[in-house]
Amino acid sequence: MSVYEKLADLSISLPAVVAPIAAYVPYVQSGRHLFVSGHIAKRDGNPWHGRLGADLSTEQGEEAARNAAIDLLGTLHAATGDLNKITRIVKLLVLVNSAPTFTEQHLVANGASKLFKQAFGAVGAHARSAIGVAQLPFGSCVEVELVAEIANE
Amino acid sequence: MSVYEKLADLSISLPAVVAPIAAYVPYVQSGRHLFVSGHIAKRDGNPWHGRLGADLSTEQGEEAARNAAIDLLGTLHAATGDLNKITRIVKLLVLVNSAPTFTEQHLVANGASKLFKQAFGAVGAHARSAIGVAQLPFGSCVEVELVAEIANE
Amino acid sequence: MSVYEKLADLSISLPAVVAPIAAYVPYVQSGRHLFVSGHIAKRDGNPWHGRLGADLSTEQGEEAARNAAIDLLGTLHAATGDLNKITRIVKLLVLVNSAPTFTEQHLVANGASKLFKQAFGAVGAHARSAIGVAQLPFGSCVEVELVAEIANE
Repeated sequence: MSVYEKLADLSISLPAVVAPIAAYVPYVQSGRHLFVSGHIAKRDGNPWHGRLGADLSTEQGEEAARNAAIDLLGTLHAATGDLNKITRIVKLLVLVNSAPTFTEQHLVANGASKLFKQAFGAVGAHARSAIGVAQLPFGSCVEVELVAEIANE
Repeated sequence: MSVYEKLADLSISLPAVVAPIAAYVPYVQSGRHLFVSGHIAKRDGNPWHGRLGADLSTEQGEEAARNAAIDLLGTLHAATGDLNKITRIVKLLVLVNSAPTFTEQHLVANGASKLFKQAFGAVGAHARSAIGVAQLPFGSCVEVELVAEIANE
Repeated sequence: MSVYEKLADLSISLPAVVAPIAAYVPYVQSGRHLFVSGHIAKRDGNPWHGRLGADLSTEQGEEAARNAAIDLLGTLHAATGDLNKITRIVKLLVLVNSAPTFTEQHLVANGASKLFKQAFGAVGAHARSAIGVAQLPFGSCVEVELVAEIANE
């Protein structure tokens, strides 16, 4: 089953690539690697504000991380032209806007990690770090960056 | 002298690979690089809790970073089958759970950096960033992620 | 126009490589990639202290990020011997020492991003993540790390 069939099964439609609101680009290909910029979590097209452990629950954070992952899929589709060319989701860095007492960054990050597993199967199994940060651009609750490996031409 | 002899000299016995407690894998190989997931510092097998500048001293943080590095060595051994196949420790990202007043993240990170130099010699000299973060999964005091280069097959 | 001519146009003179004050090296080359250690922002040769949203304005943060980028250029020059060998600035990680209310990390990071675009043109267009962190080594306001791609020998 192709990645697109899996996404259809999950009722996920891919967004267009998210244009950066600052002086950088959404992704860079270098050799067989795609380095994808940090994507902030959105809800209804706007940054999803708030801090885990204060304004948002772990479940909301997990949904936010999943939303960021869907946007990352949109960017990966734009970068590759075909998500099936991706041979591995290599690594995620998941940044969680955290109150000083919040210690479930790994559960929040699962929102992104599980989606990559669902969409890509074994190709989606990735290395990862999850971190509680002091703030994020636009007050976003979650930001996710990614390295992916693509097939040799 | 092999890496294992150096570790024996340091009285370090390698732990088994640390199984992630979330939806990711401990490492991914892509080309000649191993991308290793963030490993949290442990003490007596449990997450080493606390915040630098509040609950823990810089010396304790340095010991925690060294502990995380030992776990990373266990994962690298599992990934390669032979640590001597590693041709370079490329880069560390050292995340230090920090009170707002704590500014010695670089000294904490040295706990990991020095161990890689001791174990690998020149091969262990790496690029690095050390950061003070708001929190870490499980309330851990330190988390370390790593990129290593391995020999061509 | 070479990178050096562009830097001269900007009246930027490159500093010598910044020697790490801890147990790591300023950069590691692995294959065609240079992994450059986090460089903290300096002013008049000393760490530029302070927290965005408390002690420093966004404009000062942007200048600090630009200063860190100039030091990164010095390190890249030392690493390559010729900045024109750089075929791509691949990725920045921009760490901004942030009060809990500060949400303009992306504007601070532009101070580094814009300089790479000015110095390298299309080669300088990079992926990026900007993060608000709890603290940084020496109380620095900004730290920037970088991955660059260099030409095949």
